[in-house]
Amino acid sequence: GGADSLEDESRDYDPETQKTLEEIDATQNEIDSLNEKASEEILKVEQKYNKLRKPFFEKRNELIAKIPNFWVTAFVNHPQISAILDEDEEECLHFLSKLEVEEFEDIKSGYRIKFYFDENPYFENDLLEKEFHLGAGGDPASKSTQIKWREGSDLSKRLQDQQNAYNKNESDSKTSRKRQLEFPRTFFTWFTDHGDASADDIAEVIKDDMWPNPLQYFLVPDIEVENGGLDGEDGESDED
Amino acid sequence: GGADSLEDESRDYDPETQKTLEEIDATQNEIDSLNEKASEEILKVEQKYNKLRKPFFEKRNELIAKIPNFWVTAFVNHPQISAILDEDEEECLHFLSKLEVEEFEDIKSGYRIKFYFDENPYFENDLLEKEFHLGAGGDPASKSTQIKWREGSDLSKRLQDQQNAYNKNESDSKTSRKRQLEFPRTFFTWFTDHGDASADDIAEVIKDDMWPNPLQYFLVPDIEVENGGLDGEDGESDED
Ligand SMILES: [Ca+2]
Ligand SMILES: [Ca+2]
Ligand SMILES: [Mg+2]
Ligand SMILES: [Mg+2]
Repeated sequence: GGADSLEDESRDYDPETQKTLEEIDATQNEIDSLNEKASEEILKVEQKYNKLRKPFFEKRNELIAKIPNFWVTAFVNHPQISAILDEDEEECLHFLSKLEVEEFEDIKSGYRIKFYFDENPYFENDLLEKEFHLGAGGDPASKSTQIKWREGSDLSKRLQDQQNAYNKNESDSKTSRKRQLEFPRTFFTWFTDHGDASADDIAEVIKDDMWPNPLQYFLVPDIEVENGGLDGEDGESDED
Repeated sequence: GGADSLEDESRDYDPETQKTLEEIDATQNEIDSLNEKASEEILKVEQKYNKLRKPFFEKRNELIAKIPNFWVTAFVNHPQISAILDEDEEECLHFLSKLEVEEFEDIKSGYRIKFYFDENPYFENDLLEKEFHLGAGGDPASKSTQIKWREGSDLSKRLQDQQNAYNKNESDSKTSRKRQLEFPRTFFTWFTDHGDASADDIAEVIKDDMWPNPLQYFLVPDIEVENGGLDGEDGESDED
């Protein structure tokens, strides 16, 4: 701690200064200790309210389950999530039956986003989780469920093929490497990407914006994506 | 609120869906209400600990006052603050006798940074404050004490002259406008700048890093800036 670094200090302070610095350090230790107590109390408040909110989130999920395509509609109406939804992925998300965001018991060390799926033609999993936690070095890290794609339905492979074709094209036209990297993210590339868990904007938007109040996004009028809307008798929106 | 937007919705949901949406909305209102209560409780914890910390901050300031050049040394040793310190400004900050950061009583609406100065050859003020608050539209805004520079000692004017000369130079050499704006910020241009109060990195560093524990920066060894160091008998550091 601070006292150690004061003692270790090879610099020669005059005795009076040294004494004052030690007193500053002692006062600082009192402040640090109060900071820790404050953090602990705040954590307890957050834990208490997480418990109090839980039954309402569960009730909300039961109600949401009664509304067909609730989550895919909310996702499509959300500006940042919609921006990464590929058309095939949007079709796939029609099978998303339940979303949950769970903070770890101690809150500060992480959270997981749980996507529950009905039986579907894309993959065998009924639960896809993306989890954010503190890695070995104490830095934010993430991991996610391995998706068991059904044969011929691997959307990530389809997207990878598109990306390769796009990159080849860009490479042929001799544009910069930077440009190549600008191929848009998609939902499943986001889901499987663990490159910078400390700045996962999509995960943060789901945790801090979508999950706290999804109804507002379900209700946003967006003619293109309405069931029975303007773009076809099957109620699908294929233009973005 | 949500109930209103449900009623206002011109969309025709079937009666069962409409009922379920209203139930989701009611559940959401319960969650929102718990969120508000949680925020209030957390605010009370923060206020309580601000009160408990106060006497220790005051004692720390009394002790710091006994150490000559404590604050200028801590500033010069801090990587981000040091980066904006012009050489003349550093001389001026030798007269900085006390620093205080005060959060507003309700915390969330703002804070002020108070720089107390001894009688000095640069300006007449003995207190320079930069305050961050919520402006008319509810957005972060800042204001600061008007500095009463003594004749011939206006550092901001001196710096403005340098900047003008720099810009003229850049303009003569036909470089872009962007380049012109890259003239480095200085302490007093920061102090008087209210362009983007929502992203004032220097103010945040002072509030969240320097003020919580200045001793660590005072103690960081930095030969260039030590009093009686390597760079001159007057204890000044003129290279950065
Ligand atoms: Ca669709
Ligand atoms: Ca100096
Ligand atoms: Mg679409
Ligand atoms: Mg210097």
